[in-house]
Amino acid sequence: MFVNRMPRYEILSPDAIEVLDRGWRRIVSEIGVQFVKPEAVELFAAAGQRTDGETVFLDPEFVLEQVAKAPREFDLQARNPANNVHIGGDHMVFSGVYGPPFVREGAVRRDATMTDFRRFSMLAQSFPELDSAGGVICEPNDAPLDSRHLDMIFALQTLTDKIYMGNVVSGANARDTIAMTEILFGSREAIEATPATVSLINCNSPLRWDDRMLDAQFEYNRANQPVVLTPFLLMGAMSPVSIPATLAQQLAEALAGIALSQLVREGCPVIFGSFLSNIDMQSGSPCFGTPESAIGLLCTGQIARHFGLPFRSGGGLTSSQVADAQAGYEALMTLLPTFLAGTNFVMHAAGWLEGGLVSGYEKFIVDVELLRMLREEFTPLEIDEASLAFGAHEEVGHGGHFLGAAHTMERFRTCFYRPLLSNSQNFERWNREGGKDANIRAGEIAQRTLDAYEPPPLDSAVRAELEDYVSRRRKELGD
Amino acid sequence: MFVNRMPRYEILSPDAIEVLDRGWRRIVSEIGVQFVKPEAVELFAAAGQRTDGETVFLDPEFVLEQVAKAPREFDLQARNPANNVHIGGDHMVFSGVYGPPFVREGAVRRDATMTDFRRFSMLAQSFPELDSAGGVICEPNDAPLDSRHLDMIFALQTLTDKIYMGNVVSGANARDTIAMTEILFGSREAIEATPATVSLINCNSPLRWDDRMLDAQFEYNRANQPVVLTPFLLMGAMSPVSIPATLAQQLAEALAGIALSQLVREGCPVIFGSFLSNIDMQSGSPCFGTPESAIGLLCTGQIARHFGLPFRSGGGLTSSQVADAQAGYEALMTLLPTFLAGTNFVMHAAGWLEGGLVSGYEKFIVDVELLRMLREEFTPLEIDEASLAFGAHEEVGHGGHFLGAAHTMERFRTCFYRPLLSNSQNFERWNREGGKDANIRAGEIAQRTLDAYEPPPLDSAVRAELEDYVSRRRKELGD
Repeated sequence: MFVNRMPRYEILSPDAIEVLDRGWRRIVSEIGVQFVKPEAVELFAAAGQRTDGETVFLDPEFVLEQVAKAPREFDLQARNPANNVHIGGDHMVFSGVYGPPFVREGAVRRDATMTDFRRFSMLAQSFPELDSAGGVICEPNDAPLDSRHLDMIFALQTLTDKIYMGNVVSGANARDTIAMTEILFGSREAIEATPATVSLINCNSPLRWDDRMLDAQFEYNRANQPVVLTPFLLMGAMSPVSIPATLAQQLAEALAGIALSQLVREGCPVIFGSFLSNIDMQSGSPCFGTPESAIGLLCTGQIARHFGLPFRSGGGLTSSQVADAQAGYEALMTLLPTFLAGTNFVMHAAGWLEGGLVSGYEKFIVDVELLRMLREEFTPLEIDEASLAFGAHEEVGHGGHFLGAAHTMERFRTCFYRPLLSNSQNFERWNREGGKDANIRAGEIAQRTLDAYEPPPLDSAVRAELEDYVSRRRKELGD
Repeated sequence: MFVNRMPRYEILSPDAIEVLDRGWRRIVSEIGVQFVKPEAVELFAAAGQRTDGETVFLDPEFVLEQVAKAPREFDLQARNPANNVHIGGDHMVFSGVYGPPFVREGAVRRDATMTDFRRFSMLAQSFPELDSAGGVICEPNDAPLDSRHLDMIFALQTLTDKIYMGNVVSGANARDTIAMTEILFGSREAIEATPATVSLINCNSPLRWDDRMLDAQFEYNRANQPVVLTPFLLMGAMSPVSIPATLAQQLAEALAGIALSQLVREGCPVIFGSFLSNIDMQSGSPCFGTPESAIGLLCTGQIARHFGLPFRSGGGLTSSQVADAQAGYEALMTLLPTFLAGTNFVMHAAGWLEGGLVSGYEKFIVDVELLRMLREEFTPLEIDEASLAFGAHEEVGHGGHFLGAAHTMERFRTCFYRPLLSNSQNFERWNREGGKDANIRAGEIAQRTLDAYEPPPLDSAVRAELEDYVSRRRKELGD
């Protein structure tokens, strides 16, 4: 996995962090946070916090005491140990796009299907730049609503041997995810000892954690499986039109959610989540890859480190409909700060299109190229006497060229980044080969990758047990 | 103009800088630098440096003494004082693409003409994100070779009221640039007191400064007009396949060129230039927007500051043939580090396509959008009690939205970045409006901008004098 040993780009002064610190403290104590689940409110009340219906008024010091119980770093196991990951510190985990109901493939935009879900899983399995296909890599609209989570988990478990994200639609779905994870990893004990699935719990911002997400959170916390507690903040809609105000709100929501997790099970692993962008104030549409979101991301990284928590943010976000120039620059406008901030868990790292409504095959390839480039760019340069290659200068002298120099000949295969998608052919050759833009080439690469896909080996008894579980539960759910 | 008050992203340790420092010292003293102009070699010899034919073996301490005579920062005047710029410190100057013989407009790629040159000048004049149209914004192949520099300077002087770059094809062309600049600014004294044109002097890397560029450099140095002394480094061809070796070579070449400038005229303004990328080792094609070039750029900024020199680097570079996803991400892969490094003079900031062979109309608009976004992103956030907008939280509470909140209503017009090109329309609306990708929309914006262009006012006597100069010199040159 990728370990980011480059410096962090930090833009908040100690004074600024202090202002933000006062901000979240005032929000949680004076306005409070709603938890739409009586069991959650009871846990807070039992721990001495003032409650009023669903609203919990939190003592900031109490929140910090709870937050301090969460591990600063932890491991997550994959069924192929080579794909295990570490969450926190300088480590970065990359996971595919999450949530879109639609897909785009070439000129066609359509409802996503279970076949698409499987194909995106196969793409994610094929590229080492992704540590996970994600969870809801697209919403398979052709599968029955009540049982499709079983098909999705099964696909992630069998078509990939990487970590995968759990279902959070309900507590029951979370229990299914955990049960299937127990089957894959052998026992409840095995996954409680080292977690094996990670799940996204979104806040219904501002300041409300809803029942279904909380039901799922409780299941995962109890099973010691990490959750990404994520304020969902499109400034102007779910938070004020001010980055500092939004950062304070994000802290209030995330820290309150993390405090709850530690009341459910002390020491259970959590990730400080951030999903922070803004809406277009003229149309109300969400915007991605904006300057505001990049600033928010850089600040979030610094804040998460301040509180000693691994954090989730970033990805290849864009509002664009297609994998065009806008998609390219907006994705990088988020992904480059993702690396500058040293983001520990990166959702939506590949495939995100159209503000998250579409999983794009071409966009997936664009993003993989960006991840490959950035991993190279964020690998520290080794500078020593030998790297100065003085001998090459002695050999070439003035006005010559280094193409045939001994130093070059020894290194030419590996000395530079070799692109997956980017093209540097001259015009004549590019034209002769069809004059294909990056979008067309990306579609071809996606298809070639799918054609070459080979499923990772899986013990047939385990597979059969998973199939039995899926078919039994599907019947119980009436699908 | 833009002042970058965000932190610099520095990746070189003091030890690494020391290794690079030893590297350039060894190159200039042991291998030496060639100057293909007897007058240059004589100046070095007279200053006590050992010479052998065209090769000058430089004492590093002597080089540093000369470099110390160059100003750390200086002003450059435009004919509209509102467009004056400051070179150095936290200031960033943005200038258009420089050098392409071809243009691309939509699906058409063709030889550039004087009409294209004028249209790109008009575009540069229209966007405040550009401080200069540049110099050879494209090579007008329909104008006679010997006199086209006159037409180009005249176009830059009359169609824009911003700073412009001088011609460097020969000493005579440089003299014409200076003469026309004297006319525009009133006198030689006026432009010697505050320079009014800046010129690009490229090194014929490795380690050779050629005659025609040196002839031009001498003219500009003598007239106190700044030159950008730029090693031209495509790793693998003009320098070793090692970033540290290339950085040491870049220092050797640039510092030697700067030392010469101070022998020509002590205290004349210079800019430490960098043009650093790599070739594809399979095809030999130059590659842009690569991880290697981004790393080189970040290092160059840190090195230039170490030597107290304003520096040139960056831009919206790409190898792509069209303004597609590759063009978008490669441009930003260079432009974002351009801002992280606090680059003082940014050539190729808009319009660069196809490895610098093409000036692209659509790409110009893509780049202007990137510059607009990055200027916003690199403006420090103000974080104080008021920015926390606590009242908005009191107003909205839990699970509501901020769209109609008083805090939002007071700020909605200016609170977020408003894009020029990026589109966040929903799919139905985008589709209804023609389903245009960023490339098509950029072409429309370019045309609309040209249609709305109004020439900046110019004193008719000055214009007549410039016209006289051009027509007299054209006759002398036999065109």
